Amino acid sequence: MRFLSTNPLVNNTQALAAFDSLRPYIKKLQEIAQHGGYGVEEGFINVPFDETLLNTVVSLKEKMAGDGLKYIILVGIGGSSLGAKAVYDALFGHYDVLQPARTPKLFFVESIDFKLLRLLTDFLADKDPREVLVNIISKSGETIETSTNAQHLLSRLPKLKDRIVITTSQKSTGSIPTLEIPQKVGGRFSVFTAVGLFPLLCANINVVSLLEGAMEIRRLALDEDPKRNTVAMSAIATFLNSRNGKDITNTFLFGPRLESLGKWNIQLIAETLGKEGKGITPTVSIGSNDLHTTYQLYMGGPKDKFFTFVNTQKQDGGVADAVYKAVKGSFAENGLPFVELLLDDITEKELGAFMQFKMMEVLYLAKLMGVSPFGQPEVEKYKKAVG
Amino acid sequence: MRFLSTNPLVNNTQALAAFDSLRPYIKKLQEIAQHGGYGVEEGFINVPFDETLLNTVVSLKEKMAGDGLKYIILVGIGGSSLGAKAVYDALFGHYDVLQPARTPKLFFVESIDFKLLRLLTDFLADKDPREVLVNIISKSGETIETSTNAQHLLSRLPKLKDRIVITTSQKSTGSIPTLEIPQKVGGRFSVFTAVGLFPLLCANINVVSLLEGAMEIRRLALDEDPKRNTVAMSAIATFLNSRNGKDITNTFLFGPRLESLGKWNIQLIAETLGKEGKGITPTVSIGSNDLHTTYQLYMGGPKDKFFTFVNTQKQDGGVADAVYKAVKGSFAENGLPFVELLLDDITEKELGAFMQFKMMEVLYLAKLMGVSPFGQPEVEKYKKAVG
Repeated sequence: MRFLSTNPLVNNTQALAAFDSLRPYIKKLQEIAQHGGYGVEEGFINVPFDETLLNTVVSLKEKMAGDGLKYIILVGIGGSSLGAKAVYDALFGHYDVLQPARTPKLFFVESIDFKLLRLLTDFLADKDPREVLVNIISKSGETIETSTNAQHLLSRLPKLKDRIVITTSQKSTGSIPTLEIPQKVGGRFSVFTAVGLFPLLCANINVVSLLEGAMEIRRLALDEDPKRNTVAMSAIATFLNSRNGKDITNTFLFGPRLESLGKWNIQLIAETLGKEGKGITPTVSIGSNDLHTTYQLYMGGPKDKFFTFVNTQKQDGGVADAVYKAVKGSFAENGLPFVELLLDDITEKELGAFMQFKMMEVLYLAKLMGVSPFGQPEVEKYKKAVG
Repeated sequence: MRFLSTNPLVNNTQALAAFDSLRPYIKKLQEIAQHGGYGVEEGFINVPFDETLLNTVVSLKEKMAGDGLKYIILVGIGGSSLGAKAVYDALFGHYDVLQPARTPKLFFVESIDFKLLRLLTDFLADKDPREVLVNIISKSGETIETSTNAQHLLSRLPKLKDRIVITTSQKSTGSIPTLEIPQKVGGRFSVFTAVGLFPLLCANINVVSLLEGAMEIRRLALDEDPKRNTVAMSAIATFLNSRNGKDITNTFLFGPRLESLGKWNIQLIAETLGKEGKGITPTVSIGSNDLHTTYQLYMGGPKDKFFTFVNTQKQDGGVADAVYKAVKGSFAENGLPFVELLLDDITEKELGAFMQFKMMEVLYLAKLMGVSPFGQPEVEKYKKAVG
């Protein structure tokens, strides 16, 4: 993966000053990396290196998911589903409807939707239980959507009672196999824990490559040289532009299969930074679709947006290349600030790299903006109100 | 469908003054409605009443789409695909992967994606041509993504050459059945023309109900009484809030199956209003998913957003109702402005009503903001650059 600070429209002196202001935090993260473990909330940067975790997930997969596994039902919402969905959709899910015979398929049951539940239970009714695995994910164990959906699913399909895996940070109750989420790793930072690894591994996705991509980026993100630490420099470009009235940050993904990756990133930015009246509003565009929708607004409307283009270096052919080049040219010509993240291709390794990049970038953004990157106090209030 | 101005946070005197400023335009629209036809760009408000159009579409469907039709491939992008996709996904598409046997299925080929094209042609390769219909939609006849995709598809599956319908405003060439888009009806206002009607009708969707919903709303939108003209009042609430620093307008749809409807609305707002440095930024949230993503930002972050909640009155059960009530309460408590659009249920009629509401609302918004609602000059520039 390559980061290109193509047209960031930031003052270099200001950028370097901002980098200097981050140095103590970089040092702190280096210590956390060296120390390992999950004693502090930034400990999520150690997850990709956790061999015990990987072995636990692999063992449980071997126990629960034989060659006959065809359908994984992930019951979870927000940070419990978005990471796995981002990776799965980029690799398979976006095309699932065109590949009815390709398995294992990963289905996501997120918000409460009784039509979906009925169709899902109809679909699964005649399946051999060994073909199905239900992964119920809730860090708190109390998410109302997840518990409601899980109850409905299992009351209609009691034959699946031995085909359940729970992923949670709560104490295990009873005999259901349970995977642990470290208490201090927040949902939006949990994709490389069992939350993401287990369902992706069951779907035959190469999670080792995913973790390798993440490991490489951590090294980059801890570098004290601003030329190499592109993670911090991307945060700085976003931050300086936000101070300059560009408080909408758009991730412009070239390729509809990356749309779920964009949604995962939206949660990361919104929940991490939206506090104490501060925050930037994350939006997603898809190329080339949205050149026929929001592009007019970007070019002709208020200049209140900062853009990150995400594309593959191995592009699909002449027309797609021409489109991307034309778009970049028009953005630069119209004075719209943008940086680029170029993936070698849509692979596990590059997806892991992208996600680690964004998770560590948002730490730097929080530091620059002066908010705590952890917790989501308003969501907790809401959960209580409906709980 | 019911519009509720629940917590608009606008001054009533200002709202009524804004309504008065719209009166001449309401009168103009009344005349256009009375006169009929497509002589002016606002003529799109007459489309749902066009019986000739409906008959043409029905005849061509009867000719091209027998009982054996299973797959409709819509090749189009932006205004050529978003309307049909909004309706199809709300009724069927969101669940297609769980219903492999349900047909006809409607597939959308939008941006250039050679992986998608390969899977699609593999999927169709062994199908009887009578099971397949390809609808190529491009108003200008020159959209680069659409022509590239259509060429690839047909060069790989020449057996489909007699299974094509073209929808365009250009002169028909050759013997391929062609449906006409009126020259002055813009892509983003074209859902009730053949652009939307033909593929939806082929997918056995009740387009007559869709049009009935639209017709009812037109009457409402032309009313000179601000108490009844909720379309104008919704525009006024959005506009007055945007003048008050809330220049992001969020459509918060309760139900993932409505996500494509949100995207259709994003194009409508972005292309209609994003001009001459003016414009508001449209975003979409999905309930209850995004209570676990962006809700933290809405509550804890900058107060720069106006919200339209879209929900069904016939809700799915206890928990969903409790969630919706809690959300509304928390928005009101935190001083976030919102209005509500309540659909009786997710039906053709209610979807038609919603779309007409939004298309006419955006006319009023453009008038209030002082921009021309028609044309998309920046998109045209881009199309030339890559053409």
